[in-house]
Amino acid sequence: MSLPRALLFDVFGTVVDWRTGVAREAAVILSADVDWLAFADAWRDRYQPAMQEVRSGRRPWTILDVLHYENLEAVLRAFDIADVPAQQLAELNRAWHRLDPWPDAVAGLQRLKQRFIVAPHSNGNISLLVNMAKRAGLPWDVILGAEVVRAYKPLPQSYTRAVAALGLAPDQCMMVAAHNGDLGAAQAQGLQTAFVPRPREHGPQQSTDLMPAGDWTIVAEDFEDLAAQLGA
Amino acid sequence: MSLPRALLFDVFGTVVDWRTGVAREAAVILSADVDWLAFADAWRDRYQPAMQEVRSGRRPWTILDVLHYENLEAVLRAFDIADVPAQQLAELNRAWHRLDPWPDAVAGLQRLKQRFIVAPHSNGNISLLVNMAKRAGLPWDVILGAEVVRAYKPLPQSYTRAVAALGLAPDQCMMVAAHNGDLGAAQAQGLQTAFVPRPREHGPQQSTDLMPAGDWTIVAEDFEDLAAQLGA
Repeated sequence: MSLPRALLFDVFGTVVDWRTGVAREAAVILSADVDWLAFADAWRDRYQPAMQEVRSGRRPWTILDVLHYENLEAVLRAFDIADVPAQQLAELNRAWHRLDPWPDAVAGLQRLKQRFIVAPHSNGNISLLVNMAKRAGLPWDVILGAEVVRAYKPLPQSYTRAVAALGLAPDQCMMVAAHNGDLGAAQAQGLQTAFVPRPREHGPQQSTDLMPAGDWTIVAEDFEDLAAQLGA
Repeated sequence: MSLPRALLFDVFGTVVDWRTGVAREAAVILSADVDWLAFADAWRDRYQPAMQEVRSGRRPWTILDVLHYENLEAVLRAFDIADVPAQQLAELNRAWHRLDPWPDAVAGLQRLKQRFIVAPHSNGNISLLVNMAKRAGLPWDVILGAEVVRAYKPLPQSYTRAVAALGLAPDQCMMVAAHNGDLGAAQAQGLQTAFVPRPREHGPQQSTDLMPAGDWTIVAEDFEDLAAQLGA
C-alpha cells in the first residue's frame, strides 16, 4: 500500500451522529409528545429514495437541503404533527447542519490534516457541510461532496469527479466510511478504502455495517486509530 | 452596515503574490537567462483572454490549470525557450499552486475565521486552491471559486452561485479583493465589498488599483486591518 494524498470522508454516520442529533433538535423545536428517535429514523428512511429520483435522472439536480425539507413535510404528516410554522420547519430542517461529531472525530481529523488533505465527500450540500464544520470544529481542507460534483453517491461519477477536482489519481485518494456500500462503490473507481465502524449510528439495535464486508485497504476502530495506522 | 456572515476572497493578487512567486519558480525550474518577472507578467497577460473564451461560451467549461498550461506553452514560444520536457512544464504550471501569501494574509484570515466563514472565491480551480492553502497555511472553511460555480469572475452568476452555495443572501456575503473591477461586479449582485490595496502586485511600477474606485463597504490597509474593522 502506498499512502494516499487525500482522505475523503462520508459524513452522516461516519463523522457525525445524525440520529441523536436530529432527535434532540426535533424535540426542542416541535415540543410534542413523540418518540423522537423514531422520528429521526423515519426522516432518514426517506433519504435514499429521495436521492434516487435525482440519481435516476427522473428529477433534475436538487441539493439535499431541499430533499430533506420535502421529506420533513412527509414525516410530519406521518406523525400527525400539523400546523408547524414555516420558520420552525426551516429551523428544524437545518438540524442536519448542527449534528455533533463522534467523540474521536475532531481529534482524529486534526491529526490526519497534518499529513493529508481531509475533505468531506458527503451527499450533504455545501452550506450544510460548512455550517456543520464551523459549529463542530471539523478542520476540513476543502468541502467536496454531491453539490460540488453534481452527483449523489454511490454513482461512479461522484467519486471520479471528486478525485479529479483534487487533481489526483483515484489510488491517491482514500474513501473513509462506516458504510460498506460507500466503500465498495469507491473501490470500484480505484480509490483506496478505510472502514470505520459506527455500531451505534442506528441505535443499540443496529444490525448493518457492524463489520467490514469487503477487502478494504484499512479497517480502523475510530479516527484516532485511522490516524495511527496512516502514520499521522 | 450589518455584519456579513461570510467573506469571499479574491486570491491571485489579493491573498497571494503571484508575480514574484511565478518568477521564482520559473527561474528554478527552467534555469535560462531570462527576465523572470517579465516572464511572469507575460504569462499573466494571457489570463483574462483565455478565460474570456470560456465566459463567452466559445469554449466549454475549462479549469484554470488547463488554461495556464496552454498559456505557458505560448509564453515559452514568445521567450524562445524550447524543448522543455513535459514533466518540467507540468511542474512549472503548478507554480500557481505554490504562491506565497502577503505577510498579513494568514494572520488576518485566522482572526477573521473566528467570526466569519472565510472562503476563496477565485478563478483558480479546486486543486490549485487546496494545494496553495495546505502549503501556505490559509485556513479556509470551504473552497469556492470558478470550478465550484462553473463560471469565471466577473460573470454575475459567479457571485450569485457562490452566495447560494453558502445558503446565504447576497448582503450576508462580503467580497474582499485588491481589484476594483471584481468588487464592482460583486456589488452589482448585492454583495458587500472590501477593498484591500496590494500596490506591489504588479511590481514597483504598478499604476492600477492603487486606490478604491467605488463606494465599497470597507476600505482596509491589509487583512489585519480588515479583521479589526469587522470586530474580529
